[in-house]
Amino acid sequence: MKLHVLSKMGQRTTEPPISWLMHAALSRPKLISLAAGFTDNASLPVAEARAALNRVLRSPKTGQPALQYGITAGDTTLRQLTAAHLRKLDFQAASRLGATECWSDGAMNPTLQHSNTPTLHPKIYSPERLLITGGSQQLLYMTTEALCDEGDIVLVEDPTYFVYLSILQSRGLRARAVRLERDGLDLAHLERVLQSLKRSGELRRVKLFYLVSYFQNPTGVTTSFQKKCGLLKLLKKFERAAGHPIYLLEDAAYRGLRFAGNDVPSALAVPGAAERVIYAGTFSKPFAPGVRVGYGILPKPLFTAVKHIKGNHDFGTSNLLQHLVARALASGIYGRHVARLQKRYAHKARVMKLAIEKYFPPAVEWWEPEGGLYFWARLPKKVPTGVKSKVFSTALKNDVLYVPGEICYADDPARRKPNHEMRISFGSASEGNIREGIKRLGKVLRRFF
Amino acid sequence: MKLHVLSKMGQRTTEPPISWLMHAALSRPKLISLAAGFTDNASLPVAEARAALNRVLRSPKTGQPALQYGITAGDTTLRQLTAAHLRKLDFQAASRLGATECWSDGAMNPTLQHSNTPTLHPKIYSPERLLITGGSQQLLYMTTEALCDEGDIVLVEDPTYFVYLSILQSRGLRARAVRLERDGLDLAHLERVLQSLKRSGELRRVKLFYLVSYFQNPTGVTTSFQKKCGLLKLLKKFERAAGHPIYLLEDAAYRGLRFAGNDVPSALAVPGAAERVIYAGTFSKPFAPGVRVGYGILPKPLFTAVKHIKGNHDFGTSNLLQHLVARALASGIYGRHVARLQKRYAHKARVMKLAIEKYFPPAVEWWEPEGGLYFWARLPKKVPTGVKSKVFSTALKNDVLYVPGEICYADDPARRKPNHEMRISFGSASEGNIREGIKRLGKVLRRFF
Repeated sequence: MKLHVLSKMGQRTTEPPISWLMHAALSRPKLISLAAGFTDNASLPVAEARAALNRVLRSPKTGQPALQYGITAGDTTLRQLTAAHLRKLDFQAASRLGATECWSDGAMNPTLQHSNTPTLHPKIYSPERLLITGGSQQLLYMTTEALCDEGDIVLVEDPTYFVYLSILQSRGLRARAVRLERDGLDLAHLERVLQSLKRSGELRRVKLFYLVSYFQNPTGVTTSFQKKCGLLKLLKKFERAAGHPIYLLEDAAYRGLRFAGNDVPSALAVPGAAERVIYAGTFSKPFAPGVRVGYGILPKPLFTAVKHIKGNHDFGTSNLLQHLVARALASGIYGRHVARLQKRYAHKARVMKLAIEKYFPPAVEWWEPEGGLYFWARLPKKVPTGVKSKVFSTALKNDVLYVPGEICYADDPARRKPNHEMRISFGSASEGNIREGIKRLGKVLRRFF
Repeated sequence: MKLHVLSKMGQRTTEPPISWLMHAALSRPKLISLAAGFTDNASLPVAEARAALNRVLRSPKTGQPALQYGITAGDTTLRQLTAAHLRKLDFQAASRLGATECWSDGAMNPTLQHSNTPTLHPKIYSPERLLITGGSQQLLYMTTEALCDEGDIVLVEDPTYFVYLSILQSRGLRARAVRLERDGLDLAHLERVLQSLKRSGELRRVKLFYLVSYFQNPTGVTTSFQKKCGLLKLLKKFERAAGHPIYLLEDAAYRGLRFAGNDVPSALAVPGAAERVIYAGTFSKPFAPGVRVGYGILPKPLFTAVKHIKGNHDFGTSNLLQHLVARALASGIYGRHVARLQKRYAHKARVMKLAIEKYFPPAVEWWEPEGGLYFWARLPKKVPTGVKSKVFSTALKNDVLYVPGEICYADDPARRKPNHEMRISFGSASEGNIREGIKRLGKVLRRFF
């Protein structure tokens, strides 16, 4: 038998399901895509980016460092600005939360156990723990490389971000999925999953929980701070049996895109838990996806490991992009743009909501988000929505595309993959196309019940 | 015993040796570094990049696509321009070469065996086989991921690019090193290495040869086209015993920086060999390292595998950077800049050569490059130059830094690691500092013999 020249990883890594959707879209010029996770085109900060770049490149003194190599961990100024930005976000969100509600759950750190006072340790938000990456996607990839060997288990939400599932598949990792409720994780189910892994002796293979904490992709669900506290407490509880720390990888990619309700502090703000939290943030979605600058806050041993891995990937993200983002942050361009973007998405989400109310059959349950890019719709269980379903092919024939829920579910032997949901995005479609797309989709759905 | 939470890879991936050198440099403000692989600061294209970005971002129509997500393989226009650029380079280089010298070695493809005519198949330089990456470093990383499992063997030049050695170390791969001569690889030694691997039954673990073909890092050696033909022929010869293709990963990072002699066609131009060649190129070194755009030409099955892996890494390099490079290529900014840069490096290399002639003891053998950023110097074997050597510490005390040759040598059980060489870069130091740095280094060296 001829040996395969590709590595096991090379053989396992398949075309992402979303590519197929993209191709389908390209072949139908009249198609309205409610599938893409692209951001709103019309509000991309073209003039703002031009202004910031003209400042960065105004002279050899400022321009040369932007065009030269930098250090692997990232530009010092951007790391400081980003750390301060994140600290401010968490401080504001923590201040708004009733302290008893938020901080009394801090049993993990004995010194904070009886305190109701929000305490954001400056050292948690230190630039020394912050790594700049090529989008937050690169941080997800490298963190997983640093922690997981083939056969290890990653805990994920059920459903979750499908590109992260591709990483797991590619790297030969297994997933265990934890049910999701309207306000985030089902903690009782998490405990049962952890207990079952303990019983089967597999807990030592569990290195991390991957959580998309704000306006989750695909469901739009935001995890409450209380649930973050409970989640970290549970992970801590099972560490002794695991024989090592179990980390929380908090993917906050959509955090900047809130247009209703109040911001929730990140898991970094859970008292005593910062040494177990990896926070992945990005400027792609709230500023410009074409700029592809993300970042991570990591506990020191992990920071070092991931930085070394990044040395091998690319020894540092483009300095030009980093200087652009630093300029946008420092000048206020970034803040003003995010505020505008929030209004824009609030409007587009309202347009989609009204259209769904008008056109979807009443049997379809749907979740309205407080931010991000996605609505989540659930059909009766007997009506499949997957790539091979009649709903999907009929929708495509009627020139409207959604992301089938099934591709967002991990392979988990403990349950059958649900196949009756859809992710519907208001990110890239125009208002008119949102209305028309939902109208078409509603018409298709009405045929099935 | 407490289990380690880091993956095997996370545990293996150590601080790159160059980091230590950088830190040493930072603590001595008067130090002249002839170690860094940075490019010349004063000639970075600040005004040119600003002009190109102002064009890209001049209107929403041109600016929005640059700030939006793109496709994983890269921007279509940039892929076309890059493929055409590379084809032109190879065509010009092949035309200059005597055909009998160059193409008679084409025994690998029966249809070309008796042909002396250079044949650059357009399909080899097709944009469909070209992938845009975050610098060429990312291509090296992902190609290695796609081909090699832990324990596999990669053939490398002896010495070679130390960051590639870090990738091997991190991923648990083994290296076998093939001797280098003034005009490239020692083919007779390569054959002996391959035969020995065949005898030991390890040939099936050999997936690729990693070759830095132009002004090699660290030695400055350029591999002749004849040697590329011979190398590919040898690899092909051992494929049957290996049970699978053995690829040539040609790292052409420095190709654009030639300032003397004639360009050599890439291995893609070796008749009949294109299905075994991965060509890694970059715009970082010839345009701007801060822009970090690289690319690869890959045989179709590998192209697909690496593209899928890139989907998990970052689903595509920054569109803004890609549009900037495309604009620079299309407008002629890039071509003019490279021409200027070649003159600049020619001058700096001459300055370094004259200083070496003046200040180095005659017992030091050194190689002058025809391009790139590096001179290579060889001391008598009894005088070690490594990080722990007296030469190195004395140099540091005298405020001059070089890259010790030892860090560029793979761990290969077949030989002791040479420890009496140094890489000396004229890339980032000013002319004055090149002269003064070499003077200091010469003074240090004179103490040792």
